[in-house]
Amino acid sequence: MDVISVIRTKRDRGELSPEQIDWVIDAYTRGVVADEQMSALAMAILLNGMNRSEIARWTAAMIASGERMNFDSLSRPTADKHSTGGVGDKITLPLAPLVAACGAAVPQLSGRGLGHTGGTLDKLESIPGWRALLSNEEMLHVLDTTGAVICAAGDGLAPADKKLYALRDVTGTVEAIPLIASSIMSKKIAEGTGSLVLDVKVGSGAFMKNIEDARELASTMVALGTDSGVKTIALLTDMSTPLGLTAGNALEVRESVEVLAGGGPADVVELTIALAKEMLDAAGIKDADPAKALADGSAMDVWRRMIQAQGGDPDAALPVAREQHTVTAPESGVLTRLDAYAVGVGAWRLGAGRARKEDPVQAGAGIELHAKPGEQVTAGQPLMTLHTDTPEKFDYALASLEGSYDIAPAGTAFTANPIVLDRIA
Amino acid sequence: MDVISVIRTKRDRGELSPEQIDWVIDAYTRGVVADEQMSALAMAILLNGMNRSEIARWTAAMIASGERMNFDSLSRPTADKHSTGGVGDKITLPLAPLVAACGAAVPQLSGRGLGHTGGTLDKLESIPGWRALLSNEEMLHVLDTTGAVICAAGDGLAPADKKLYALRDVTGTVEAIPLIASSIMSKKIAEGTGSLVLDVKVGSGAFMKNIEDARELASTMVALGTDSGVKTIALLTDMSTPLGLTAGNALEVRESVEVLAGGGPADVVELTIALAKEMLDAAGIKDADPAKALADGSAMDVWRRMIQAQGGDPDAALPVAREQHTVTAPESGVLTRLDAYAVGVGAWRLGAGRARKEDPVQAGAGIELHAKPGEQVTAGQPLMTLHTDTPEKFDYALASLEGSYDIAPAGTAFTANPIVLDRIA
Repeated sequence: MDVISVIRTKRDRGELSPEQIDWVIDAYTRGVVADEQMSALAMAILLNGMNRSEIARWTAAMIASGERMNFDSLSRPTADKHSTGGVGDKITLPLAPLVAACGAAVPQLSGRGLGHTGGTLDKLESIPGWRALLSNEEMLHVLDTTGAVICAAGDGLAPADKKLYALRDVTGTVEAIPLIASSIMSKKIAEGTGSLVLDVKVGSGAFMKNIEDARELASTMVALGTDSGVKTIALLTDMSTPLGLTAGNALEVRESVEVLAGGGPADVVELTIALAKEMLDAAGIKDADPAKALADGSAMDVWRRMIQAQGGDPDAALPVAREQHTVTAPESGVLTRLDAYAVGVGAWRLGAGRARKEDPVQAGAGIELHAKPGEQVTAGQPLMTLHTDTPEKFDYALASLEGSYDIAPAGTAFTANPIVLDRIA
Repeated sequence: MDVISVIRTKRDRGELSPEQIDWVIDAYTRGVVADEQMSALAMAILLNGMNRSEIARWTAAMIASGERMNFDSLSRPTADKHSTGGVGDKITLPLAPLVAACGAAVPQLSGRGLGHTGGTLDKLESIPGWRALLSNEEMLHVLDTTGAVICAAGDGLAPADKKLYALRDVTGTVEAIPLIASSIMSKKIAEGTGSLVLDVKVGSGAFMKNIEDARELASTMVALGTDSGVKTIALLTDMSTPLGLTAGNALEVRESVEVLAGGGPADVVELTIALAKEMLDAAGIKDADPAKALADGSAMDVWRRMIQAQGGDPDAALPVAREQHTVTAPESGVLTRLDAYAVGVGAWRLGAGRARKEDPVQAGAGIELHAKPGEQVTAGQPLMTLHTDTPEKFDYALASLEGSYDIAPAGTAFTANPIVLDRIA
């Protein structure tokens, strides 16, 4: 087997054989295939595609590159969720303890943010003392004793994916549906969850800008999970405007705690409950009532135990950014558009996100929204508050917010996008 | 400027701007753009193409990455030739001294073989004492005093191309017409020749397997040369069967000397004279008679002086391989096909070529043909003689020759391909 013949096969629009896929993933993991060879192959895959059986084999080969976890020792059924990433997407924070409070075990191996979408681990690290890095034993212990755990994936899980993801990030080959699908699913299948609910975001703030691409990605991932014995369903959900009223690490933790306390923005509550129902259904748990578990404090109890089990203090004050800047409405009327991508880039520029993997993030930085599409606004009222420790970045962030919203005359008809756009099972 | 946006532009079928091209070539030469990024871009170019103005700018940027040579000090007009590479293509050896004998200065910066096509420098290095590496001053001196020089291109000429060519070779991105054209023409324009004749090979033994691709490559290169002030014409020539009766280093030198002595195979003589006429015409030299310069020994005189000026002994015995193996005709009839690619791979496997740049070649290895398409053969007569110092390779070479020729019943009509298939100016 040689790598040039593998690259040529895909370059010339052929189908990669199972042997070619197994070989190239293994050889790349071992360093026998060089980065410049894998990036040429990744570009050929991006431009010429892979069919379902190629994607399935590619995913299996990435799983085989590392260890597999096993949750058979747990007494509860496992349910996991993965979001393809959006702006203000803090759903994992209230969702994991909520589903645990309803009877499932929720192992959430999460990532850090890169680019304009935030990362769940970055958000939780704004809680004083909280640790993202757990050994496999610690992870199982937190999961077993609290019902939920949110932590970093260990290095042993799908190392081929870790290496390939870092390569795609610097070679313009991120946006390939076969590679996105196999990257997500290899980690989820290797992790060993019994069921999985995918939240595939659609809109300006998401990877997938249109619903056709999102549907293709979702159905590819559902097929991959199902074929591997993981009960998998996907919701396509709106990401044209940020979720909730905050984008930024500590800001989103605060909003998540509001939801766990029975309050919080309506869209965050709606999506959290919709995903919780799907996860419980996929895990075979009947008669659970997620709305009640939010209202009666049982989800909050799991949250507090889960944060404490990973060294965090759920009662500690969250970090606040040193400086604020308020953007006011230039006129009165109805807010008809507030662009997710612009808000995401703005929060990132304020310090909530990172440009390179090794960059630190600011816990307090981000954007707080004071109105959402469909709401009336009055000239001069605050529309957004920008938070940062580096006020010299205000102008840079404000530039990304220019033209990010529309205000129409009062009385203009407005129809909000539904949160859940489609369901694929 | 950042490399990901350049890659995305081409990946998404856009046109690269002049600024993007200048930046990416310069940044790659300086190591700011990494190999894995350039290979992703090369694959995107291979699959999505470049238009004429992108190719022209790409070529100019590669020229600007290094030094330019200058032949203004010579009293004669300069004429250069480049072949895209074929099996048994030793034409440069008799052609350079022949054109010099007719009054032009012929600077031939040549390469080594890689894969199934031989390299001019490898061939000449089978002459005891001959040196391929000359300083710029030595090169000019040989050219000035003998009229012709064949040597390796210096490291200063289009270093971006050297780096990119090596990368394409290991990433499955060699076969991109925009990259082939800009690679060849950047070196030829930087070299500073006044006129250039391109020999674009077509057929199984060539890079370009069909005449449409060859025509596109030829017209791309002619336009690039013409736009840069180099009088450029291209001949498309047949490479469905080997040129002459030899493929291999010393074997081809011997055949070239036969041509310079007024003999040699008809196809080699015909193509040598056709290319010589084009070169002399492009250089503005009228009334020269290349056939006469072969017949009267004046081309041979230049050859001898040129070889001696680079340390070689034109009278020394050429190396002979230690072992021979003869393939005989299994039946009588007319040879209707003898495949160039199969013979090229066979010679390569016998040791005439190299698999990796750092491999040595055997001077004596190769294949000698005893019949060419159109000729009558008798059962049991020798068809080919295989030469090698490593007889354990005979079986490996013979495998590539299986099915490489057809013998039809005597009297079967046979129409030979013309040597010159088309001319593009």
